[in-house]
Amino acid sequence: MNKLVSEEFPFHGRRFDVVKRTYENSDGKLYSREIVKTPSASIVLAIDEEDNVIFVEQLREAIEKNTLELPAGLVEENEDPKSAAIRELREETGYVVKDSDVTFLTSVYTSCGFTDEKIYIYVAKNITRGETSFDEDENIEKIIKIPFSKVLEMAKNSELEQANQNVAILLYNLKK
Amino acid sequence: MNKLVSEEFPFHGRRFDVVKRTYENSDGKLYSREIVKTPSASIVLAIDEEDNVIFVEQLREAIEKNTLELPAGLVEENEDPKSAAIRELREETGYVVKDSDVTFLTSVYTSCGFTDEKIYIYVAKNITRGETSFDEDENIEKIIKIPFSKVLEMAKNSELEQANQNVAILLYNLKK
Repeated sequence: MNKLVSEEFPFHGRRFDVVKRTYENSDGKLYSREIVKTPSASIVLAIDEEDNVIFVEQLREAIEKNTLELPAGLVEENEDPKSAAIRELREETGYVVKDSDVTFLTSVYTSCGFTDEKIYIYVAKNITRGETSFDEDENIEKIIKIPFSKVLEMAKNSELEQANQNVAILLYNLKK
Repeated sequence: MNKLVSEEFPFHGRRFDVVKRTYENSDGKLYSREIVKTPSASIVLAIDEEDNVIFVEQLREAIEKNTLELPAGLVEENEDPKSAAIRELREETGYVVKDSDVTFLTSVYTSCGFTDEKIYIYVAKNITRGETSFDEDENIEKIIKIPFSKVLEMAKNSELEQANQNVAILLYNLKK
């Protein structure tokens, strides 16, 4: 790492903070970076006994439209990523899964050019139906089941719009 | 979309801006979202005649370490994403490629829970060596060539730390 010379905190938000850091490189030159500091998130590729993938349709204000998503959410303080994945699956879809039926697939940085966000991806099998309990201000429209083979075709056709769901589905497919 | 009630602009940066929006949902309830507005980026999976993938090792201050990356960069104003991919490949690695040897693979949102960032992923073949010309404050340490089969093993073993490079490599592998 280059030497940190100074840092400012120009934005403190509910979802993320912005920090502006000035570094000195090995030539003595100063340069700055604006960084979004955000909690980690967990996402879960949940597959039912008929090989359907469980998606949620959710309004994403940042891109001003509804998107098809794998169940996901922020890892809370003092929570481990796996527990967060299991909790988000239950809250967003009503599906319940035992800890022993959830396996770690991978973890990735989403966009380390400007943010420290890291996501943990899990695969859940042997899921059973329970009750949903959405976060108060979450805009989940509906739950959608799609056969895994069709999901893979969607990935091929660029119909899965988010990096994280592509990583989950493509890596699971490669490793299974 | 829910009705936009108001918006504030708490941070205006060089790399991104933050907008805070308040919406009213269909029940009349108000809620807010903090959103990072950022330009799109292009990344390029460049493969040489010996089936090596071209990586750069780059210091990423946001995660406080060097990472292995596919050549990538922001799409400039009045630039199309494909031209940006070709330009970034040349600037960061010195490899030159003809427009007709670059094909679109997919585009994805990196993390639409808090940012509108969209990345465009291209595949470049028939690349030839030229000169590098790094951005002034870019911290690219070195260029690394890795056989595609090894890269795929690295993806399987969670050794590729970024979502975008996983999408590029796994989707290219599925479609080829």
